[in-house]
Amino acid sequence: MLIKLAKSCGFCFGVKRAIRLAENNPDSIVIGELIHNSREIDRLNRNFGVRSADNLDKLKKGDRAIIRTHGIEKDAKAKLLTIADDIIDATCPYVTKPQKIAEAMSDEGYQTIIFGDGSHPEVKGVLSYADENAAVVADASELDRVTIRDRAALISQTTKSIAAFGEVAAALIAKTSETRVFNTICNATYDNQEATRKLAKEADVMIVIGGKNSSNTKQLHSIALQYCADSYLIEDGDELRREWFANKRLCGVSAGASTPDWIIEEATKAIEAF
Amino acid sequence: MLIKLAKSCGFCFGVKRAIRLAENNPDSIVIGELIHNSREIDRLNRNFGVRSADNLDKLKKGDRAIIRTHGIEKDAKAKLLTIADDIIDATCPYVTKPQKIAEAMSDEGYQTIIFGDGSHPEVKGVLSYADENAAVVADASELDRVTIRDRAALISQTTKSIAAFGEVAAALIAKTSETRVFNTICNATYDNQEATRKLAKEADVMIVIGGKNSSNTKQLHSIALQYCADSYLIEDGDELRREWFANKRLCGVSAGASTPDWIIEEATKAIEAF
Repeated sequence: MLIKLAKSCGFCFGVKRAIRLAENNPDSIVIGELIHNSREIDRLNRNFGVRSADNLDKLKKGDRAIIRTHGIEKDAKAKLLTIADDIIDATCPYVTKPQKIAEAMSDEGYQTIIFGDGSHPEVKGVLSYADENAAVVADASELDRVTIRDRAALISQTTKSIAAFGEVAAALIAKTSETRVFNTICNATYDNQEATRKLAKEADVMIVIGGKNSSNTKQLHSIALQYCADSYLIEDGDELRREWFANKRLCGVSAGASTPDWIIEEATKAIEAF
Repeated sequence: MLIKLAKSCGFCFGVKRAIRLAENNPDSIVIGELIHNSREIDRLNRNFGVRSADNLDKLKKGDRAIIRTHGIEKDAKAKLLTIADDIIDATCPYVTKPQKIAEAMSDEGYQTIIFGDGSHPEVKGVLSYADENAAVVADASELDRVTIRDRAALISQTTKSIAAFGEVAAALIAKTSETRVFNTICNATYDNQEATRKLAKEADVMIVIGGKNSSNTKQLHSIALQYCADSYLIEDGDELRREWFANKRLCGVSAGASTPDWIIEEATKAIEAF
């Protein structure tokens, strides 16, 4: 069986930057999970003493805090500034952008609509920059339960697929006089999705590696499933099963933006071993 | 056979307004066709002496000119002001709006993209208000032949379907950082389209009455065809054929925004006569 890695996959610019910031700031405390990959978080803890705190109350004066790649809510950031002595902002610049757009559009009187998962930290963060008229929708049909105003600004969670974003935009346009659509889907997400799509079309089995709470990894898995019925999402090589590869000719491998190279290599070796 | 008229069809606000202006200004000259209905134009000529001139050179000092419902190009309007003594602007306010948007968006540095038929007078008029970066596309695939800039403003010809507009918007969003989408489809068009769609779903045969050069009438015909294979576009009752109605239970009738009531009544009587 041949194993082929997607042309674009794994660590994105924002994740690389966050990990570099964490490595350069040992013994600091991340609010929440720095990235959605528990094994990489363990490595940063083991090798650099970087810990995670699930809320701000765990911080005390003098601590050095890191803001996670997904960003945090506006109020939390303001509060953090009053607690920590030193704050390292590892918010991905692709996430800072929709935060700023949400704030500016609210100021200009547009109703901010965010296409994304309302329970995801990135979306919660972006939403906190908009005014009280803002809403989060997971798909176009959810627009029906929101009171839509005459002028809207539409933003996407950075890791969503452009096709699904287009569907939400098309539905919103019909309900407004003006909709300002900001394409805030990040390039790495787009590239990884296109590379996964291409590979899934030719593969007999697809392995997508990444955190199961990682939005972009889940998107990759969902795209892979559209073209290759035998597509599996795993966090690491231990989850692989021999029967997945029986009588398969080509195994495609892709990985989310928060999956480090060493996990991809480990999993690829495990596949080879079958 | 039962005959049922669409809940919303025929003359829209802009057409009614234009005809009132023409009737109140006898012996004036319209640049082009006031509305896309040759029989109504004949009536205005016969009863009110309102003539059409196919270009500005036919006008002389002292003439009273009427600007058609679809508007005219910016340069032509400026030239008209230097020739005619009296100008009656019958441009539909729903068309003036996209003209103003095209001008404002060009001023703000957005590339204006117009979804519509580039040969239609309304679209030519709107395009003339935008800068040289503007483009007209008939569908989403035509975006591929345009150099799209980072920030775009999308406008629709007033008579297009909202679903098709959404498709163009979705494709454009993928090519830009920001797209300001202005829903310039007029309410009457939307209402007529929805009423035609509803009627076509239950009808065995559909008759759509209106000018064959009328964009909104062609749209109604195309919507009717989606739900009722036996859908016909006619300009008046003379075009009806007996065989269309053989063994039909329900005949739906709809009419474009430039079709006067008297033509709808005439055609309905002709259908009844079969």
